[in-house]
Amino acid sequence: MAYKKVGRQTIQFEHPPVIANTYTIVGPKEGQGPLGDRFDLVMQDNYYGETDWERAEIKMLRETITNVISQAMLKPRDVDFLIAGDLLNQNIAANFAVRDIAAPFLGVYNACATFAEALLLGAVFIDGGFAKNVVAAASSHYSTAERQYRFPTELGVQKKPTSQWTVTGAGAICLKDDASGPRITAATIGIVNDMGEKDPYNMGTAMAPAAADTIQKHLSELGRAPDYYDLYIGGDLGRVGIAITNTLLSQQNVKINDKFVCCGMMIYNDKQGVNAGGSGAGCSATVFAGHIFRELKAGRLKKVLLVGTGALFSPLTYKQGESIPSVAHAVAVEM
Amino acid sequence: MAYKKVGRQTIQFEHPPVIANTYTIVGPKEGQGPLGDRFDLVMQDNYYGETDWERAEIKMLRETITNVISQAMLKPRDVDFLIAGDLLNQNIAANFAVRDIAAPFLGVYNACATFAEALLLGAVFIDGGFAKNVVAAASSHYSTAERQYRFPTELGVQKKPTSQWTVTGAGAICLKDDASGPRITAATIGIVNDMGEKDPYNMGTAMAPAAADTIQKHLSELGRAPDYYDLYIGGDLGRVGIAITNTLLSQQNVKINDKFVCCGMMIYNDKQGVNAGGSGAGCSATVFAGHIFRELKAGRLKKVLLVGTGALFSPLTYKQGESIPSVAHAVAVEM
Repeated sequence: MAYKKVGRQTIQFEHPPVIANTYTIVGPKEGQGPLGDRFDLVMQDNYYGETDWERAEIKMLRETITNVISQAMLKPRDVDFLIAGDLLNQNIAANFAVRDIAAPFLGVYNACATFAEALLLGAVFIDGGFAKNVVAAASSHYSTAERQYRFPTELGVQKKPTSQWTVTGAGAICLKDDASGPRITAATIGIVNDMGEKDPYNMGTAMAPAAADTIQKHLSELGRAPDYYDLYIGGDLGRVGIAITNTLLSQQNVKINDKFVCCGMMIYNDKQGVNAGGSGAGCSATVFAGHIFRELKAGRLKKVLLVGTGALFSPLTYKQGESIPSVAHAVAVEM
Repeated sequence: MAYKKVGRQTIQFEHPPVIANTYTIVGPKEGQGPLGDRFDLVMQDNYYGETDWERAEIKMLRETITNVISQAMLKPRDVDFLIAGDLLNQNIAANFAVRDIAAPFLGVYNACATFAEALLLGAVFIDGGFAKNVVAAASSHYSTAERQYRFPTELGVQKKPTSQWTVTGAGAICLKDDASGPRITAATIGIVNDMGEKDPYNMGTAMAPAAADTIQKHLSELGRAPDYYDLYIGGDLGRVGIAITNTLLSQQNVKINDKFVCCGMMIYNDKQGVNAGGSGAGCSATVFAGHIFRELKAGRLKKVLLVGTGALFSPLTYKQGESIPSVAHAVAVEM
């Protein structure tokens, strides 16, 4: 049997799975941002016809998954595996979204790195011969996240300039063993890193060391130079995290500055009041599945590295005085 | 490439990964139960030298993982992948447990089916050629779960006879591509099922249809008769869920009654006041990794089917009037 692990953390796929198609739904604020026309559906409001924000997030994720399945010319009964996660306690957005979709389900959680985790696990299932297709999906919702992690939005609590704004959105991709489209060629799975940052309003600082470590390992383990990729896509470090990650990488002589973008900074414009940028499991899910996928299909991008980053804390650990462990997973996608 | 999926939901491993060794830590109550001598360590109290229950659960899971690694004659730097999850919001037991263990990490969540999910994903990584070894682990803690899901324990709220008692315990297994020991030969990944049960004090009823469905699919997709396995191990349906699952299976002419046990009923005796039995991600993790693994190694069991069942709700969905979606994953382990 061929051994597909290269170095300490990286998998190189033997028969790179194809991202056959994608589907995305976002909130009105995300629809008004610079990528507004790259999403499949922009909701008119944050309730999406439901009675509460949690049900809105569930509906958004469910419709994203059912639409990616139908656009892949499949029925739910044809889907080999569904892999999904979100930010809500007990992953309820994913759990409730899939209860009406008759496909085998695996729940995952790595905070904002959840989409990258689902994507690479999907590729593992296909390249390993366990599936011909897999749907990977993730979501987040500003209002469900705010009241769970921070304060009721009604309080109007001010936020620090280093804080990030949770994206309202859901993204799903359908991976196939054979189709036309960009392929997942490699993935680097992150080691959890905790440098002692304790401020939940500064997740970029907490996540930057994990991001720098994973990017550096990915390139060195595959023997790739920094210029191998057209674009490095942070998901989502924000303004603060990107700057720190660049500094840390420069210290290791890895210079990707001009090619390093962040989903959280691409999805909003400077006037939308999101401080350091967007975040949330739905941020990289919608920007990657919505915008990046279209750029790859159009040939404007050929090789990209998605770097999903997750701050693995909870409101409880914060109140108990704990620091914020972080993880970053890198997924290489090439046309 | 060989296609290893059999039927709708089942994977048949080509080179069945080996459960090389296990490690378990439980609380004092579990230590006083019928399986008390089958665990590697029984804590003297529920704090385990820490200041709070969450830190106790984190320490328990961390030590379970580090011990399974050292007993496998490995260093953390040799571990290809760590897959773990727990019941706490944002999977903090797993996230914080692994921040001192330098191995690539993937977080999973399927409630009490989390251990079965981690185990089957580990097998997928090894059989797919992505890893030579994987550590899979899960934990739960009575006191962290009570205050998160139900009421502060200090209130002394009475519970229904159908309720289950969250096991305080952590279990880890080290899977290898080659070693002596029981092998994971197949796995059936569950479809999420929701029959409308809304009572969080009756999770057995909510999970039974998922368990029955997965067991029936597992046997029919592999063409195995019910007597193929020496033991069917629910993890963890409790007294109520086992009875309903047996009834549902009988209606499909699948009779496993006398061979169908539940981790949650094995770990406590009738005098321990746990109502319908134990539950929690640590329940099947400790009973399987502690007791069942020893029975397999000793040759007293040859073929078993672990059926991890998860109630995929949250306190919030319950308060919003939602029912309880459930999932069950089956993992076949044979000597």
